[in-house]
Parts: sequence; C-alpha cells; structure tokens
Amino acid sequence: MSGNTFGTLFTVTNFGESHGPAIGCVIDGCPPGMALSEADIQLDLDRRRPGTSRHVTQRNEPDAVEILSGVYEGYTTGTPIALLIRNTDQRSKDYGDILQTFRPGHADYTYWYKYGIRDPRGGGRSSARLTAPTVAAGAVAKKWLAEKFGTQFRACMTQLGELPIPFESWEHVPHNPFFAPVANVAAYESYMDALRKAGDSCGARIRVQAQGVPVGLGEPLFDKLDADIAYAMMGLNAVKGVEIGAGFASVAQRGTVHGDSLTPEGFASNHSGGILGGISTGQDIEVSIAIKPTSSILSPRDSIDIHGKPVEVSTKGRHDPCVGIRAAPIAEALLALVLMDHALRHRAQCGDVVQAVPPIPAAI
Amino acid sequence: MSGNTFGTLFTVTNFGESHGPAIGCVIDGCPPGMALSEADIQLDLDRRRPGTSRHVTQRNEPDAVEILSGVYEGYTTGTPIALLIRNTDQRSKDYGDILQTFRPGHADYTYWYKYGIRDPRGGGRSSARLTAPTVAAGAVAKKWLAEKFGTQFRACMTQLGELPIPFESWEHVPHNPFFAPVANVAAYESYMDALRKAGDSCGARIRVQAQGVPVGLGEPLFDKLDADIAYAMMGLNAVKGVEIGAGFASVAQRGTVHGDSLTPEGFASNHSGGILGGISTGQDIEVSIAIKPTSSILSPRDSIDIHGKPVEVSTKGRHDPCVGIRAAPIAEALLALVLMDHALRHRAQCGDVVQAVPPIPAAI
Amino acid sequence: MSGNTFGTLFTVTNFGESHGPAIGCVIDGCPPGMALSEADIQLDLDRRRPGTSRHVTQRNEPDAVEILSGVYEGYTTGTPIALLIRNTDQRSKDYGDILQTFRPGHADYTYWYKYGIRDPRGGGRSSARLTAPTVAAGAVAKKWLAEKFGTQFRACMTQLGELPIPFESWEHVPHNPFFAPVANVAAYESYMDALRKAGDSCGARIRVQAQGVPVGLGEPLFDKLDADIAYAMMGLNAVKGVEIGAGFASVAQRGTVHGDSLTPEGFASNHSGGILGGISTGQDIEVSIAIKPTSSILSPRDSIDIHGKPVEVSTKGRHDPCVGIRAAPIAEALLALVLMDHALRHRAQCGDVVQAVPPIPAAI
Amino acid sequence: MSGNTFGTLFTVTNFGESHGPAIGCVIDGCPPGMALSEADIQLDLDRRRPGTSRHVTQRNEPDAVEILSGVYEGYTTGTPIALLIRNTDQRSKDYGDILQTFRPGHADYTYWYKYGIRDPRGGGRSSARLTAPTVAAGAVAKKWLAEKFGTQFRACMTQLGELPIPFESWEHVPHNPFFAPVANVAAYESYMDALRKAGDSCGARIRVQAQGVPVGLGEPLFDKLDADIAYAMMGLNAVKGVEIGAGFASVAQRGTVHGDSLTPEGFASNHSGGILGGISTGQDIEVSIAIKPTSSILSPRDSIDIHGKPVEVSTKGRHDPCVGIRAAPIAEALLALVLMDHALRHRAQCGDVVQAVPPIPAAI
Repeated sequence: MSGNTFGTLFTVTNFGESHGPAIGCVIDGCPPGMALSEADIQLDLDRRRPGTSRHVTQRNEPDAVEILSGVYEGYTTGTPIALLIRNTDQRSKDYGDILQTFRPGHADYTYWYKYGIRDPRGGGRSSARLTAPTVAAGAVAKKWLAEKFGTQFRACMTQLGELPIPFESWEHVPHNPFFAPVANVAAYESYMDALRKAGDSCGARIRVQAQGVPVGLGEPLFDKLDADIAYAMMGLNAVKGVEIGAGFASVAQRGTVHGDSLTPEGFASNHSGGILGGISTGQDIEVSIAIKPTSSILSPRDSIDIHGKPVEVSTKGRHDPCVGIRAAPIAEALLALVLMDHALRHRAQCGDVVQAVPPIPAAI
Repeated sequence: MSGNTFGTLFTVTNFGESHGPAIGCVIDGCPPGMALSEADIQLDLDRRRPGTSRHVTQRNEPDAVEILSGVYEGYTTGTPIALLIRNTDQRSKDYGDILQTFRPGHADYTYWYKYGIRDPRGGGRSSARLTAPTVAAGAVAKKWLAEKFGTQFRACMTQLGELPIPFESWEHVPHNPFFAPVANVAAYESYMDALRKAGDSCGARIRVQAQGVPVGLGEPLFDKLDADIAYAMMGLNAVKGVEIGAGFASVAQRGTVHGDSLTPEGFASNHSGGILGGISTGQDIEVSIAIKPTSSILSPRDSIDIHGKPVEVSTKGRHDPCVGIRAAPIAEALLALVLMDHALRHRAQCGDVVQAVPPIPAAI
Repeated sequence: MSGNTFGTLFTVTNFGESHGPAIGCVIDGCPPGMALSEADIQLDLDRRRPGTSRHVTQRNEPDAVEILSGVYEGYTTGTPIALLIRNTDQRSKDYGDILQTFRPGHADYTYWYKYGIRDPRGGGRSSARLTAPTVAAGAVAKKWLAEKFGTQFRACMTQLGELPIPFESWEHVPHNPFFAPVANVAAYESYMDALRKAGDSCGARIRVQAQGVPVGLGEPLFDKLDADIAYAMMGLNAVKGVEIGAGFASVAQRGTVHGDSLTPEGFASNHSGGILGGISTGQDIEVSIAIKPTSSILSPRDSIDIHGKPVEVSTKGRHDPCVGIRAAPIAEALLALVLMDHALRHRAQCGDVVQAVPPIPAAI
Repeated sequence: MSGNTFGTLFTVTNFGESHGPAIGCVIDGCPPGMALSEADIQLDLDRRRPGTSRHVTQRNEPDAVEILSGVYEGYTTGTPIALLIRNTDQRSKDYGDILQTFRPGHADYTYWYKYGIRDPRGGGRSSARLTAPTVAAGAVAKKWLAEKFGTQFRACMTQLGELPIPFESWEHVPHNPFFAPVANVAAYESYMDALRKAGDSCGARIRVQAQGVPVGLGEPLFDKLDADIAYAMMGLNAVKGVEIGAGFASVAQRGTVHGDSLTPEGFASNHSGGILGGISTGQDIEVSIAIKPTSSILSPRDSIDIHGKPVEVSTKGRHDPCVGIRAAPIAEALLALVLMDHALRHRAQCGDVVQAVPPIPAAI
C-alpha cells in the first residue's frame, strides 16, 4: 500500500531499482487459461528498450524477461505471474558524485526528505527504467483484451519540443525512432542532434489510442475510466499533463459542438474521447499526454547539496535527451492495464461483457 | 469497490442520486480529537450551492449537512463520520421524457449499457449534485491540514469559454460569481447572458492551488501525488484535462529552463508545480483543469432512443450554462482530500511529519 | 481504511454509535437489476431486534430501515445502497458514571488508549447495536445469492453456557428465543432466569451453515474462503473462537478419516466444512463460533478509572445476559456477506459461475 | 486482488508454485532506515525448513533467500523489498499420476473447478511450500517490531494428534523437532514413528504468543486485531480452528470470571488474550490454532478422476506426516505480519505510538 501496486483487480506490483540486481513485477488476478510465453511479453519490452537509436540512452540491456510463476505448460493458471528482468549494464560509478546533491528537476530532493535515505544509483527507484515491468505487465493485459474483445492499442508522438508533428498515418509509427506518424523524420533528427550538442533536452506530446473497447467500462463516482487513465498517465515519469478527447480545447467549445450527437449509425463525432460519465462508450479512447524535458542534462545547473550548500550540477551518465521518445509503448501499456482492470471490475458487478460493440454501434 | 470510495486511508464513500431522498458520504480514517461541527462543513457547501446567481442553476436547496456519527461532544472520535444532506427541491417530472432517450454528451448512454437500468431523474447518480458530499468531506480534510500544517487551498477561474481571464489578485475571487481573480467581471456576465439566450453552454479552465504543503507527500511508483491529483480532478464531472505545474507548456520547454534550480534560499522557480518524482517538494502545488461545456442545453440536438430510433433532444430542467463556474470549491475539496490521504499514508510508513517546511525552504 | 468497510467487491461501510442520531451502512458493488425493498431487509432486522423476549436486552427500538439510494422503482441500479436506521430509544443517562471508568471485559480501556477520546454512551461505537447494519447488508447479499444460486443460510445455538444443546431439527430454530434446534427450551429458560437473578452472564456456541454454495469461491493464497469467514466471525462482538468443519476436533483425527473421500455420487463426508485449499467445494459450509459471556453485568467488578485509581464497577443499563442469543441472524449475515463478496471476486477473474452444483455433485 | 497480497499497509504479495522456477514475495510499505540483510531473514526460514528431522518431509532445499530490491547499503529505503527463493529439489515426476485425480482432503478438486486448469506438481500453488515467503516477510516485520516496541514472538505445540502436550517451559521449544514446550519428547517420537509406519497422519494444536505489544492496535468495526489474526491463521494451510484468549472455553465461563479485572498494577488475568473490542490491551496476545492431519498419506483412499470415474489414490512424494510440526515459525510470522500492519495503520490515523506499555501496565 506504499503505492507500488497498480490496479484493483488486475494488480501489478512493481519492484526494483535502476542499478539493483533486478527489476520486475507480480501480476495478480490474470484470468486462467490464456496462452502466455516470454515471447508474448518480450515484443513490447523490445519496443521500449534503450540503445536502439542515437536519440535515446546508450545503456544497452537485453531486458530479457523471465516468467517465474503463474504459467503452467504455456497457459496462465489464475495464480500470480511473477516477471523478472535482471539488470546487466549498470555503471553505478557514474552516480557517486550525486550522492549528496539534489539534481534540479529530479526526485533526489523529495526522496531524501521523504525517506531520509535514497539509492542514488541511476535514479534508484525513481528511474524510468522501472517502466519496463509496466510494459511487460501491459503486454499480458493487451493479449487478454485482444483475445476477448479485439481491443488494440497504439501511440504516436504528436509534438517534439516546440515542433508539432502532423498526423499522416499510423503506418509510419513503427518505422522511425520517434514513434512519429510521418514518413520523413529528418527534421526531428536534426532537432535532436542540435539539442544533444547543446547539452540540453526537450519535451514531447504523445497520443495514445485504444480501439475495439467494450461499452460499459468504468466505475463512477470516483474510479471513472478517465480518472484512472489520468492517474495512470500522470504517474508515468515526466508527465505533466493529461487530456481525454477534446481536452483543454473543450474549454472554448460550445455545448452544441462538444456533445457528440448520436445517430442510428452511431456517434457522429468523438470529442468525448470515448468516455461519457466516466464509462466507455465503445468508441476509440483518445488520450494525449505532455512529457517534460529530461532533467538529466550535461549543461551545468545551480543546486544545493544535502547540507544546503550551493553546488553546480552537470549530470553525467547515459540519458535520453527526450524521454518522450520511448514513451509510446509505455503509454500503451498503461492504457491497457487500466482497461484490463476495468474489464474485470465490470464483470464482477455486471456479469460478463457479451459484446465489444454495443447494440447501437459507435462510429468514428 | 464499485468506485464510490475516494482515498486509501482517509476514505470518503459517496452515496445518493440527484433526486433520491438524500445524498451524503461516510468519512473513514479521520484522526481523533479534532473539533468539528456542521458549521465547519457548511461554509464550503454554501460556496458550491446552486441558486446563488443568475449564471448557475436555479435549483434552490439549502444543502444543510447533518453529522450522523463520528463526533462526540464536538470532537472527532476516530470512528466514521457520516454526513447526510436531504434532497429538497427535486422536480422529477422535468425528466420523464428523457427516460428512454440518450442526451448527447451525457452519461445516459453509458449507464444504460453498463447497468441495464438507470435513474433518469436529474441525471441520477451522474449528476454534479453528487459533488456536494465531496465538498463536505473536503472541508473536514481542509480543517485538519490547516491545523496540522497550516495548509491552505484556493481556486480561481482562468478561462471562460474562449475568454482568458487575466490574473489580478486572489482577493477578488470571493467577490464575484465566477471565482474570477479580477475586479471587473462585466465582460464575463455579458458573455454568459448571450450564451444563455442562445440556449448554449461553454467550458472553463480552473486553477487550483495548495500552500503550506509538507515536503514528502506522495507514494511512488504508482500512487504519486500528481497521479492521485490527476485521478481526483479528471474524475470531477465534465473535466477533460489536467495539468500539474507547467503542464502542456513543458513540452516546448528546454531542460535547462524547466528543471527548477535550487539555491540555499529555496527553489528558484516552480515549473514542477510543487511535485518531483511524485512527491511534494513543499512548494505550492499548482493544478489546472479543463471543464467541458455543459451538456444540458436548450438547443435541440440529434440523438437516439434506447431502441436506436432517431430523436431530437432539448434538455429542459434547471442547469448551469457553465458547470465550471461552481467548480472552484469542488476542485479545492478534491485537492484537500488527496493531500489529506497522502499525509496519513506518509506517516504510516515514515512516521509523523515534523515540519511543514523542509530544512531547505521552498521559495515561490 | 480505518476498518469500517467489510468486503472487497461487495463492500459494506458501517457507521454510527449506539446512542448517536443514527446508524447505517453504504453497500457498494451490488449488481444492478435486483428487486429490492425495505421489506426484504426488515425481516432479518426483526430477527435480530432487541426486546423480543425476557432473555435479551429490553431496549425497544423498531430498527426500521430506510433505503436512501441505489434503488430506482424497486430495482437496484448498481450504485451505492445507503441504509439508515434512526436510533430512537437511547437512555444515555445510564452511562454518565462510566465515562471515566474502564468496565472489565469491555472496549473502554482500549478505545481510550487508542483514540484518546471515546463516546461512552451505550458502548458508543463498540456496541453490538452496530451489528444491525451488518444484518441489513447481509439481507441484500442473501437475496442475491438465493436468486442466483439458490444459496440458503441458517444458524442455531449449540451450547448455552455449560449446557450443550443437542441437535433435533432445524425446524425448531425459529420457534424459540434461543435459536435452539430443540422443541423444548424450558431448561435453557430456567438457566437464563437463574443467571439473570445472580447478576451474571454466560457464553454461547453458534453453528452457522450455508447450503447451495457454488463450487469455486475463495481466493488463495491469502483471501481464502475460510480465512475470510474466520475474519468475519472473529470480528463479531464477543466472539473468541471460530471453527470450520471438523475444527479443533480435527487435531485428534487421522488423515485416513479426516480427508473426505470422493465418489461418483459426491463427497462421502464433510469434515472439511465445504472448503478445500481455501475454495468452496459446493458442499454445505459449516462454521461454529464461540461467544464469550456478556461483559455488562450487574455484579460488581474491580476496575480502575482513567487516572489509574481503583474503582468498583457494576454495569447498569439494559443488557443481554447472553449476547449469543441474538447472534444467529448476525452470523448468517456475515457468512452471506463473505460468500457474496467471493462470488463477485470469482466472476471477475474466472467469468460468470454457471452452476451452483459442480459436475461431480457434493453429497452431505 | 486475487487474494495473493497480505496486509493493508505492510503488504506482502506472494508468488510461486511448489515446483516452478522460484517462489518469493514483494513487501511494500516497510519503513525506511531499518538495517536489513539476508541473514536476518534466513534464520526464520531455517526454522521452517524441511528435511531437519525424520518427522518432516525429506525434501531438502536450502531455501536461500535473495533480496532483489528495497535495501541500499544494508538499510531499507522505503521502496518494495522483493525476496526470491529458487526451487532446487523438485521431483515433479512424483506427481504425474495425480494430474487427473482429485486427492481427498486436497485442493485438487477445488482448483480444478475454480480455474479450469491446475499445476499438479507438488500441489502447485496450494503447497505449504508457499509459506516460506510468508516466513521471510514475517522476519522483516519481527525485526521492525522488536526494534520499535520490543515485541517478541514465540509458538509451541500443545497437542499432537490425541496427545495433549503439557506446558513445562518455553525454553524447551527450540531444542526438539516438535516445537514442544517439554524436555522429553520420546512419547511424541514413538507416536510419529507408529503413524508413519501405518501410512497415516495426524493433526496438531499450536499456541502462538506475542509479548511487548503496544496498546491500541486494531481497527474496529471490522478490521479488528482478532479478526485479522483469525484471517491470517485460518488462511494457513490445514488450519481448521482459531481461538483468541479463552477461546471456546469462554462459552462455559461466567461473565464474573471471563472479564479481566483491572487493578492499579494492571490486568488481573488475560482471558481476553490481549484484545478487547478488537484493539490490543498491551497484554500478551494469545492465539491457539487447530491443524488438521496431512492429506497426503500413503494409505489408499477412495476418490474420483476429473471425468468422475472412481479411482484409488495413494499419495507418493515426500510429505510431512504432521504438517503441524513445522507450523510454529509460520504462525509466529503471520502474527508478526498482522501486528506490523496494524502498527502502521495505527500511526496513520492516531500518530506515532509513543509507548509499548500503556500508562496502566498490563500484568500477566
């Protein structure tokens, strides 16, 4: 209950530090009888893996996952699924000099004053490396949702620093290191190269989508589907904003425009982002998140040490100049975990969901 | 566990429908020994109350709260505090004709397909009226946080429809019906009058702030303080976006700018919004939320009935043309509930918080 | 999370004090679409009600329940069901003199040192009166389980003080004030009369049974069905022991005897009490509980006051000389709540339970 | 939420199967700053370990624990502590023939009908081997409670089959394989030898005690300390009964006897077992549990296979003829976990416990 478990019925308990012996998670509540192997999980882990292009951290780890329990002869048994990823490429010496220093924009200061002790190696517990077990757990959720409802997840970058990225097609996303929905990413490569040379970093905006969502997921009054999505996304390292559907643009919309009309053929628009009253409509769920610039930068910054003395900090080590670049598969995983949890919660109270598409189909 | 309980240690279980006999909540986990009376709670309820200006719903209810338990001779005993508010001004006949119709932008459609039954009177469970018990519970949290740490909460409107509202001073907020931080609200009154005449509605943006927050609140990896704030805010009726600190603007910021420098005198800026690594820094917590335009409008809309037949819907009844107008006290209450819960969680694991201000003070 | 909520998916949040304005509970997670009225609940409340014979407390209250929410036109809507029972026959003056005294065997001492404050009127929160909302919630669970699976609950007294009560037939139970399964209760009436004259009290042993239980309820490793039953029963006021099936007698049994054989016609015995590995077998669930003698007695006892000074305490007020007498309907309600919760948990993970009787039927 | 997490604030999530690659647990909520090493944990694991005498299973595993996270340079950091124990001496071939058979008294039948799939190797998830991670987690709880309050735990056997074991002294307990509080265990050794020769098994009764418990632990109305102890103990494999204090004997006690008198020197007796109204009194907590005879026996039993056909089952493999023999350290661990959890819950709501001994000391 110290905040390391995600979900209510499909729970994922995360453990580990960036430079400890291992990271991992325990999934409790997975339905029995689903085929599951390490390969099913490895695919998404590889999409998130560092070291795949010059625009991300050069830490190079296979992030090979081991299933320790909960699967018997290739099928889930309904018992906890423990997933283990050994850390293999730690360079803890890089962090010796930050042991007593609070890096601006980092969790150093808050961990120190909360716990009175912190593991400084690679950011310890606050490292984005801890999203790997989340991606692994998300892969299990994705598989079940795909088999049960045909639900699919995808995410792309829609802004890099101050550069908006126009939407061309989802097809381009897997073919460039930015998860950008465009054919030509030369402009973004130059942008990143300049940034890296300057010893600086930038933010990103990511769009996340789920398709083939059953109607009826979400538990008002408080555990609304959008509330839990916001919780999941804002909890992702470096996220500072979350929007559902029209998001902040809805402030300037009129009620006559924003409220999605219904026709016998389905909804006429999707300003709601697939959620009304905290419950899924069956339309696509549309989420957008803001990711702040990486705090680990080479440029020297003013800070203080644990004794309150002024120091200058310049973060060495291997870091992503834009942590948003690798955020797409993580955001997908989080959305999948939220939907999975609500699918189980729904059938607990209301019985099994019999259809992904409601009787009145959802257009767009 | 059907989503009607807010919080982990300071839990608020909400019940009631807009036009049922009563609404209310049960607060479990309140520390014993705090002076508490109905008057402490009524103050915030009155700030949220409908019928106070021509810009909000004309439903007129005193929303008088009764404490049913948990208080003995004026002090909390540590046992559950049940709060009851009787509904007194229901006009359920206004809703007879929407019983079989899905109003665009409303929860009618999703409740129907989730539960197979819904209470249509005044929106039933999905009505914003159910925020009243939340405000009541928030008042209890505010009182404890104020006495323990000196924490204070305030909120104001920063945008009304397409009109941005400049920040002049917090002092103006209590003196106008918009919770606007400006002296002259004539422009907003004209804007609202025109909108009402047009039978339309608009959205709003609200800024929420907590001051005097102890350092160390928040439970990574998942139950981060910002994650729980996003959950709370996105769960509020009509909210479509949540930002912490620099929010979506952080995407275009550089790392050299965004990461708040530390000096012996404190933080040099507050782009983080008072939260780093999911834990409070002791600086002001800054939140911004987007509220969509009210879905209940007089203008006719295309929709369908429960049999899938096309119908035209025009919502009668008494509604807020901008639900954002009354959102400020609710958003404050939600922020207070999140901080209260995390204050108790913090001392469970780390022992009592001995200071509101960390050894290295937080400036700005 | 201060311990006033029972259950995980079918949650019952209890509130109130013995002599406060009202007691009640909020049920969250009830499946939608079930017919429910106050009459369905009142029946069990009346079975538990005080003042029905000379062997129980003479406090006389109708314990009339009001449904405040969650039911629309006679059917549950899936939203929280708030139940309210007003207190009407408080005589708080009876308790003035125990305000600063710890009564032996009572919670006075522990509440005082835990919370630093306590409501002494009628035992305040620790009064057995707070079992009334539990009985009310249990009636809702019983109704759903009966409609869904045909599950039935019953309980009887098997020992009164040192007098064992032989089992004659379940038919006698509703026809005497002891819930005793015998036709002639004259011996127990004399026993109680003597005890009351002596200003003393005695304990009781209660047997609780559920029939028509679906196979598969229970969540190992920890939330086993028997673990949750033990939690429920031991949490009932005055209970000091819980047995499942053969209970303590199983210590002296041989493995060749205890392990219930299976035959194509079903289990050959039921030493397990209907639970194996923490999961229901489909056989009858058999529970036995020990209830200690009432602590509120007229005979003077040695004690101390809150300053540690010795005092003599003799409890006035109106008390049950054997609290076990009214325990049968409460124990049934608790067992029903446990099964209800596990029925929902089961279908969350494993899908809807399609049959109450497993393919290999459970005999005995 | 499928029942594999123990505790509310000090949570222990257990994973693994008897013959899978590994078993273990993740502890979340451990206070930061406590010295902790594998050696602290191994001690209790070794007390529970199989293969230490001829009276327990001959499966021989070192049960060496590895700390994967949550400890930095020898101190807990407040982040999750993952503990891993590799399985090394599986003989899965022993179980091939029970794959399609339900062993009497075992969880085979219920797992099969609950999940539709089960891991039969060594009992899979339902094996008592899964108590090892519980013992490991309990060691962490014991250490914190000992350092904070001086709390100590001990357990002994009080009955073996039909043989009651008289209490001589706690000193004898560590010096014999039965955890018996007597100097001479020859009678029990002969008893066990005869039983083993007969291919049969027997039950046991275990007494568990905590000393130096702070007053005030326990959360009424439902999460009472005794309720949670009953939950913990009844959830232990093979337990069929739980008593607190006078237990079932309290039924025949008079109120004048059972209610422990208070004097300025403390309580005059401890029939309550250290708990009143669900809250600890500061006296010793006294628990007694009944453990059924081992279900895995060599003697042939009548059963059926998964197709309902009659079969004869005789359990091979290596089993404890009395699972109660190794239960003492496990029961201690469970009691420690309950107290640890309630210690944290207490300080969340009521602030730090400042004294282990209440102002009015608890005698006996």
